[in-house]
Amino acid sequence: MLKIADKTFHSRLFSGTGKFANPSLMTDAILASGTELVTMAMKRVDLNRADDDILRPLIDAGVNLLPNTSGAGTAEEAVFAAKLAREALGTHWIKLEIHPDPKYLLPDPIETLKAAEELVKDGFVVLPYIHADPVLCKRLEQVGCQAVMPLGAPIGSNKGLKTRDFLEIIIEQANVPVIVDAGIGAPSHAAEAMELGADAVLVNTAIAVSPNPVAMAEAFKQAVRAGRMAYEAGLGGVSHAAVASSPLTAFLDEPVC
Amino acid sequence: MLKIADKTFHSRLFSGTGKFANPSLMTDAILASGTELVTMAMKRVDLNRADDDILRPLIDAGVNLLPNTSGAGTAEEAVFAAKLAREALGTHWIKLEIHPDPKYLLPDPIETLKAAEELVKDGFVVLPYIHADPVLCKRLEQVGCQAVMPLGAPIGSNKGLKTRDFLEIIIEQANVPVIVDAGIGAPSHAAEAMELGADAVLVNTAIAVSPNPVAMAEAFKQAVRAGRMAYEAGLGGVSHAAVASSPLTAFLDEPVC
Amino acid sequence: MLKIADKTFHSRLFSGTGKFANPSLMTDAILASGTELVTMAMKRVDLNRADDDILRPLIDAGVNLLPNTSGAGTAEEAVFAAKLAREALGTHWIKLEIHPDPKYLLPDPIETLKAAEELVKDGFVVLPYIHADPVLCKRLEQVGCQAVMPLGAPIGSNKGLKTRDFLEIIIEQANVPVIVDAGIGAPSHAAEAMELGADAVLVNTAIAVSPNPVAMAEAFKQAVRAGRMAYEAGLGGVSHAAVASSPLTAFLDEPVC
Amino acid sequence: MLKIADKTFHSRLFSGTGKFANPSLMTDAILASGTELVTMAMKRVDLNRADDDILRPLIDAGVNLLPNTSGAGTAEEAVFAAKLAREALGTHWIKLEIHPDPKYLLPDPIETLKAAEELVKDGFVVLPYIHADPVLCKRLEQVGCQAVMPLGAPIGSNKGLKTRDFLEIIIEQANVPVIVDAGIGAPSHAAEAMELGADAVLVNTAIAVSPNPVAMAEAFKQAVRAGRMAYEAGLGGVSHAAVASSPLTAFLDEPVC
Repeated sequence: MLKIADKTFHSRLFSGTGKFANPSLMTDAILASGTELVTMAMKRVDLNRADDDILRPLIDAGVNLLPNTSGAGTAEEAVFAAKLAREALGTHWIKLEIHPDPKYLLPDPIETLKAAEELVKDGFVVLPYIHADPVLCKRLEQVGCQAVMPLGAPIGSNKGLKTRDFLEIIIEQANVPVIVDAGIGAPSHAAEAMELGADAVLVNTAIAVSPNPVAMAEAFKQAVRAGRMAYEAGLGGVSHAAVASSPLTAFLDEPVC
Repeated sequence: MLKIADKTFHSRLFSGTGKFANPSLMTDAILASGTELVTMAMKRVDLNRADDDILRPLIDAGVNLLPNTSGAGTAEEAVFAAKLAREALGTHWIKLEIHPDPKYLLPDPIETLKAAEELVKDGFVVLPYIHADPVLCKRLEQVGCQAVMPLGAPIGSNKGLKTRDFLEIIIEQANVPVIVDAGIGAPSHAAEAMELGADAVLVNTAIAVSPNPVAMAEAFKQAVRAGRMAYEAGLGGVSHAAVASSPLTAFLDEPVC
Repeated sequence: MLKIADKTFHSRLFSGTGKFANPSLMTDAILASGTELVTMAMKRVDLNRADDDILRPLIDAGVNLLPNTSGAGTAEEAVFAAKLAREALGTHWIKLEIHPDPKYLLPDPIETLKAAEELVKDGFVVLPYIHADPVLCKRLEQVGCQAVMPLGAPIGSNKGLKTRDFLEIIIEQANVPVIVDAGIGAPSHAAEAMELGADAVLVNTAIAVSPNPVAMAEAFKQAVRAGRMAYEAGLGGVSHAAVASSPLTAFLDEPVC
Repeated sequence: MLKIADKTFHSRLFSGTGKFANPSLMTDAILASGTELVTMAMKRVDLNRADDDILRPLIDAGVNLLPNTSGAGTAEEAVFAAKLAREALGTHWIKLEIHPDPKYLLPDPIETLKAAEELVKDGFVVLPYIHADPVLCKRLEQVGCQAVMPLGAPIGSNKGLKTRDFLEIIIEQANVPVIVDAGIGAPSHAAEAMELGADAVLVNTAIAVSPNPVAMAEAFKQAVRAGRMAYEAGLGGVSHAAVASSPLTAFLDEPVC
């Protein structure tokens, strides 16, 4: 089981509430995914009503909410958003997202570290969304982040693990859970991340924009399990020359009876 | 459900009997994989005893046997091996493998087409193992092969779908099931093949050589299901610019209550 | 220097006459490329006049013509086209192309081997365009082809060396020159092929469709040289951990004078 | 021509002095590369003697020296090293490298920005070596760096442009020259970087460790030119279906005379 801060998770698939065609489809897909942690931008919920109709079915099903600071362009804005979220939703968990660039939504390493440090001191459980930068991951860990969320590719690009070489280093060096976030566009990408040894993946767009989000959520659920199971069982190495699974011996020359 | 010739399969994961540490581990892994079609080289079984101890548990569990002609270097040798197999195992299904080269075990397109034609005429259900060559696949289909088995990478290399660009064309053009065979070294590779629209995958080495073949078999089972489910649900396209799942709006400027 | 049959080539970049905006641009680009072997489809030249205006400047510059059988869908058609070309252009060199499929123009392995065998017997120097199929390459070599021309990716796709894993095997096993043909869309692709040990590359589309074909031809010329030079000088292997070129020693602690 | 700060460069290939078998080989290779900017760690030169035997031939040939701060683990150490270098070598150009991690030598984004800001204020021309992080690149540009040096892969790994997706974004957004540094292990990688629109590349390991550094330097020189030329001429896009350069028309049916 995956442990982050004081919570344990049976599912290593995290999800989000964005881009679904309607709230009921979102609820159905998230429940089908088996996820126990769902991120959401603050504006999606009525901050005065945590019993909001949209979230109620998820909360009832035991899904944890992970508000994010999407939309923040600086540490200051992100810290403010985190505090708003804590007050409104009653959770001190925060997915820290700071992306000044409106086109690719790539995260700002400097502002993220600054905000992370401040939020940790203020008692937050901070999960920062960042570039797949191994040194930055270590620094975020050192200031007390409870997990790191490096990206596989730009958000919503569905390109998969374009940062694979760096994710491997991050996973090798991390003392906190590594959650691959952004870019995962297919179950095979999620399985690959888990095979590398990632502790979890966060998938939102690929589920939400599928013509059949519920089936896609179920597909990701199984792929994440498959990838984790393979990681634990141990994968074989890549070899250059062929190694046949069928014997090469000249069986026709052998006495067969 | 997948249909090949007169048989239907609930599972789209095919497997093999090679390289397992011992027969009991092989049986356990194959059963855990949920596969309903298992390929084996002729020399692995005592051809006089179809009730061979090794195969008995598989047969009892309803697994179909798919003898292969591994070891054959010419059409003639392969045809001979197929006939031996039919007599010994009582099945007219044959996985046609002709690889003259002992190092990479890559298949011979010319001999394979020749043997396929002859075996089809002789009443066999022929599943040829071939290079990911779209034109060859069409020709094999035209002479009556009931499926085609293009390779993802050299056998046992665990390299994954190195032929992806050509598998896509094969799948697009095929009128018979496409089973990706060879090179699949991780569940993520199997899921990727299914996401592309392959009808099934054959995985042997990656399961057999894992420190935990039973868990690895289960991982592949789930990955194949996940990939298929995603294919049916519909995957999103790859985009260049980011498309955030969280809103980019400057929520901090909006009245929040 | 590269030797094919009885000819030697200083340049390892071959080209073609297709897709250029006009004949004069074609001539200029081909001359800038430094190529000494140019392929052309039979219909592009007036078969009755080898002193055709289009080809004259190339011939005068010492460029060899390599007619191809593009458009042929069977061995029979290809053999007929080859003979026509020999008569019209006075060369017994032929690039053998047989692609029954109109969409991807992928070559037919069976018909190609058949036609190659026949043409070799008839005295042709045969350079077959084929899938990157190592076993087929060996068979073509065995029937007397003077070189093999495996594809990097579908013609005109500009995708680069998608068949890289198989090109490496082909190059390792070949006793005749290996010319990578089709799919090379950028000078870096051409350099990569040469670095792998290919003997030459054939580039047409990428030069012809550039807004500046002459400059692009020059770029390919240099890239091919660069790749070959690197192959001969010896490239370093890929390593997982970093190996700094600058020293890691704590120079600040050292006495600097 | 490439312009950085107040200098112009005819060559877009930068190099370094590390890892060569001996000083004379280093000199020969660097001269063969045509580079006009060479980076070196401070400890390689006798800081009291700028007329050091090692550097003299390079300086005489007009090569500019770019001292680097390799070995520094913090901004403070890097700033100190930069000042030492300025005094010793009489140049206010500095390649800023801060990598606390001894295994992969990946750069620290936070310390790098901090040191860059300070050094710019102190009058240095600062070229920071960094992860391929587009947001960080913009921030470094904003504090006055005269170029950015994102990595292609870990130093010395020879893996090529593993960060390609992010380099494209960096190049698209940058207002200062982008120099791809680290990971470039073959001329094809250098050409690829230039084709993407990079302004220059820095190559050291791949040249220095070749069995023939002088030939390898020449190969990189040509590959960089080829890539740049192709970028300027305009490369074609990648297409899915084939687009033949030879005509597909059934020429055999046409009257040929």
